[in-house]
Amino acid sequence: MDVKDLFLNIESFENNEVVLEGWVRNNRNQSNFGFIDFNDGTYFKNLQLVYDSSLKDFDTTGHIRVGSSVRVKGTVVKSEGSGQSYEIKINSIEVIGDSPEDYPIQPKRHSNEFLREVAHLRPRTNLYSAVFRVRSVVAMAIHEYFQSNNYVYFHNPIITGADCEGSGEMFKITTLDLNNINKDDKGKVNYKEDLFGKQTFITGSGQLHGEAYALAYKKIYTFGPTMRTEKSNTKTHANEFWMIEPEVAFCDLNGIMDIEEDMLKFVIKYCLDKCSLEIDFFDKFVENGLKEKLNKVINSKFVRITHHDAISLLKEAKIKWEFIPEYGEDIAKEHEKYITEHFNGPVFITDWPKDIKAFYMKLNPDGKTVAAVDLEVPGAGELMGGSQREDDYEKLISRMKEMNISTEELNWYTDLRKFGGCYHSGFGLGFERLVMYLTGVENIRDVIPFPRTPNNCNY
Amino acid sequence: MDVKDLFLNIESFENNEVVLEGWVRNNRNQSNFGFIDFNDGTYFKNLQLVYDSSLKDFDTTGHIRVGSSVRVKGTVVKSEGSGQSYEIKINSIEVIGDSPEDYPIQPKRHSNEFLREVAHLRPRTNLYSAVFRVRSVVAMAIHEYFQSNNYVYFHNPIITGADCEGSGEMFKITTLDLNNINKDDKGKVNYKEDLFGKQTFITGSGQLHGEAYALAYKKIYTFGPTMRTEKSNTKTHANEFWMIEPEVAFCDLNGIMDIEEDMLKFVIKYCLDKCSLEIDFFDKFVENGLKEKLNKVINSKFVRITHHDAISLLKEAKIKWEFIPEYGEDIAKEHEKYITEHFNGPVFITDWPKDIKAFYMKLNPDGKTVAAVDLEVPGAGELMGGSQREDDYEKLISRMKEMNISTEELNWYTDLRKFGGCYHSGFGLGFERLVMYLTGVENIRDVIPFPRTPNNCNY
Repeated sequence: MDVKDLFLNIESFENNEVVLEGWVRNNRNQSNFGFIDFNDGTYFKNLQLVYDSSLKDFDTTGHIRVGSSVRVKGTVVKSEGSGQSYEIKINSIEVIGDSPEDYPIQPKRHSNEFLREVAHLRPRTNLYSAVFRVRSVVAMAIHEYFQSNNYVYFHNPIITGADCEGSGEMFKITTLDLNNINKDDKGKVNYKEDLFGKQTFITGSGQLHGEAYALAYKKIYTFGPTMRTEKSNTKTHANEFWMIEPEVAFCDLNGIMDIEEDMLKFVIKYCLDKCSLEIDFFDKFVENGLKEKLNKVINSKFVRITHHDAISLLKEAKIKWEFIPEYGEDIAKEHEKYITEHFNGPVFITDWPKDIKAFYMKLNPDGKTVAAVDLEVPGAGELMGGSQREDDYEKLISRMKEMNISTEELNWYTDLRKFGGCYHSGFGLGFERLVMYLTGVENIRDVIPFPRTPNNCNY
Repeated sequence: MDVKDLFLNIESFENNEVVLEGWVRNNRNQSNFGFIDFNDGTYFKNLQLVYDSSLKDFDTTGHIRVGSSVRVKGTVVKSEGSGQSYEIKINSIEVIGDSPEDYPIQPKRHSNEFLREVAHLRPRTNLYSAVFRVRSVVAMAIHEYFQSNNYVYFHNPIITGADCEGSGEMFKITTLDLNNINKDDKGKVNYKEDLFGKQTFITGSGQLHGEAYALAYKKIYTFGPTMRTEKSNTKTHANEFWMIEPEVAFCDLNGIMDIEEDMLKFVIKYCLDKCSLEIDFFDKFVENGLKEKLNKVINSKFVRITHHDAISLLKEAKIKWEFIPEYGEDIAKEHEKYITEHFNGPVFITDWPKDIKAFYMKLNPDGKTVAAVDLEVPGAGELMGGSQREDDYEKLISRMKEMNISTEELNWYTDLRKFGGCYHSGFGLGFERLVMYLTGVENIRDVIPFPRTPNNCNY
C-alpha cells in the first residue's frame, strides 16, 4: 500500500499489520531499540518505524543503510514519542536494494548547488521531494481550472517551419548529418534532404496556433514544453521550460485580466489545499511568510493601471532609480518591485507602447499603444503576459510588414481574421515561474527535474 | 455565456433572454422565417436560432453568411420542430466578423484529405470538433487517473545529450548556423560553439529519466510530446506525437499489467461519460459499433499469454500467413489481429525474446526472454508496451555493452541500481493511438491539430 493512503487514514489501521515498501531516509539506534525514518515517496512526511531487541533480526536491522529500499511488515501503534501520533512497530524487515556508504544523499543539509550535481537523486531529499510534488499538483490545478471552465486542451505543434515571432531565439531541428551537410550551388544548405524538406525550428510559443483553435472552440489552453536559445545564465532563465497559453474568443483585454486573476487564485487555493505539508515546509525553510503572501493574493482585488499611469507613478516616486522610468519604454525589475509594493498586491499594467510589444497585439485607438497586459506580483515581478489580439486584417498585415514578419508563411494565421474573425485575447504563463512563486524557490534550476541551461545538458 | 452551460440547463432558461456569441454554421431561410445553426465551440451540438419577419433586421439576418461570427440576443423557447427541444428566438443579431463566399468550410461533406489542407479551419467541422474535444477530455482522464492514484506528474527533459535507445531515430537540435558550421581539425563539427557545448538531440522517450523519479516518488507518469525521425508515410506514424510513460517502483510485470488494464478502463469510462454526444457521432459516422467495442473492453478481463504460447497458438491456426510466426521473432499485424479475435478481447503478450527488445528490460531466469509486455486490443493492435526494468546492476551493464549503449553517458541511470534500487516497471502509451482507438478515426493526421510527417511541416 502507499504510505499516503496509510497516513490519511492511519487511525483506522491501529493495531493492524501493514506491508510497506519504500526507502530508509535515516536509521538511528542504540543497544536495545532503533528508529527508521521511512518514506515511499507518495507522502511528504516520513513514517517512523520502530524496532527493539525483541526483533529476531535486530542486529542486521540496525545496520540497514540510509538510501536502501526495504519491505517491512509492521503493526500500526500509537506513538509514545512526540512528533507523530502513530508509528510502525516492525515485525519483519527485508532489504530489497542496498545503498553503499558513499550514497550521496545523507541525512544532513546539502547545498542546492551540490544537489544539482546529483539531479537523478535529489528528489529523494525533503526540499526537492516537496518541490516536484508541488510542481505536479500545480500542473493538475491548471488542467482542472481550464477543463472545468469549458476550455479545450490544445496541443500546439512543437516543430515549426516559421520563426513566428521573428525573435531568432529558436532552436533549429534537423535530421541532416551536421558533419556532412549538402549545399546547393549557392552554398546554402539543401533542406530538400531534411526530413520535412525545409528548414525547421522548435517553436517558442503555441499562441498563433492556439488562436486558430480558439476561433473554433472559443476557449482553449496549451500546456507544453517550450525551448528558447537565450544565452542567459540567470536564476530565472532556462532553455527548456513549460508554458501555459490560454486563448479566448469573444474576450477583450478586461476579460482576459478577469481570467488571469481568477485562474491564479484558483491555483493558489488548490495548492494550499492539496500541498499543505509542503507549503508549511517552504514557509519554514525557504521563504518565511510564503503562506501569508499566498493567502493575501487570494483575498486581494488585483489593481489595473495603464503603462502611462505606472510611469507617472514611478516618476513621482522619491527614489533614485538605476533605470530612469520613461513613457514609451519598458519597465525594469526595480520598477515592478516599487509598483507591487506601492499597491501592496498584484498589479495589471495595461496598454503598453506598441514598439516594445509583439506584432499580433491589438493597436489601441491612440495609434501608439497596444492592448497588452503584464501581471506583476509582489516578490516575483512579471508572472503572466497577455494581450487582446489584432483582429483587423489590414492593420495586422501592415504591422507584420513594418516588423518584417513573413505574411506568406503566416497566411493561415492572417486568414483567421477573414473567416469569421472576432475580438479575442490570450495570455502566457511560464509554468516554472509559477512554481517558483508558489514554493519560494529562487532558482529555476531547482524547479525543473533535469534543467537545461547554456553549456549544461547533463543527464 | 457559453453555449455548453446553456445546453446543460436549458429548461431553467425558458422564456429568458440570453446573450450569446459564436459562429454561424448554416443559415436557411424562406420568405417569412429562417433558421441559423449556431455553435460557439464549447458544445458539440448546434443551437438552433430562429427568426421571422417580425425581426427588424429580417432581411440582413437572412444574408448572414456561413462562418460569420455573431452576437445574438434571443429568448429561449420550446421548439415546435423536431430534433431539439429548445431553440432561441432572435431578438437582435449583430455580425462581429464576416465570412466571405469563398470560406472553405461549407455546410456539406468535405473529405478528410481536403480538410487537412485547411488545418487551421477544420476544427470548425463536426468531425474535427468532436475529435479534438475528445482528445482534450482523454488527456484530462489520464491526468485524473494518475493524480487520484498518488502518481507525480514528471516533466522529463525534451533536449538530451544522449541517444539513449541507440535508435538513431532522434532529431538533432542546435543553435549553430547550418550554412556556416565550424569544424575542428579532424573535420568534425565543433560543438563547443553550440548552446550546450555538445551535440544534443530531442528525446524519443522520457522513460529513463522517469525511472530516476519513480525511485524517489514510487509512482510517476510523464505526458508530453515526443519526436522521432521515422520516414514512414503510414496512417499510424507521425514525427511529432504525445506519449504517456508511467513508471512504478516496487511493481513487477503482473503489477504493471494490472495498472494498464485499470487505466484503460478508467479512460474509456471517462470518455463515454463526458463525451457521449461525440462518441455517438463517431459510432454513427466513423466506426459503426464503436460504442459496443468500448463497452466490451470495460467489461472484459484482459487475457495474459506468453509470447511463446502466442506463437504456438498462431502456428496451430489453420491460416495461410503472410509472415510465418516463429518463436524468437516479432509478431506481425495479422498475428495481432488473429490473437485478439481468438480471445475476443484485449490480450497482454508477455515474456518476449530478448533480442527484439530494449536493453533496459529485465532478463527472465530462462536467460532468453525479457519481462516485457505488449497490450493488443481488437481493431487497433498494439496499444501499450511495457516491461519490468533490469534492476541488477551487473546484468544491466553487461546488456548495455552487448548492445553498444554508452555506459558512461548513462552512468546516472545505472547508478539507480546501486543506490536503493528495487524491482520496478513501466509502460508507454502513444496518446494519438489511444485517441484513434476511442474515436475510430483511422489516420493519425486526423487526431493531431497540426500534424508533422515526412515532407510535411505546414502551418
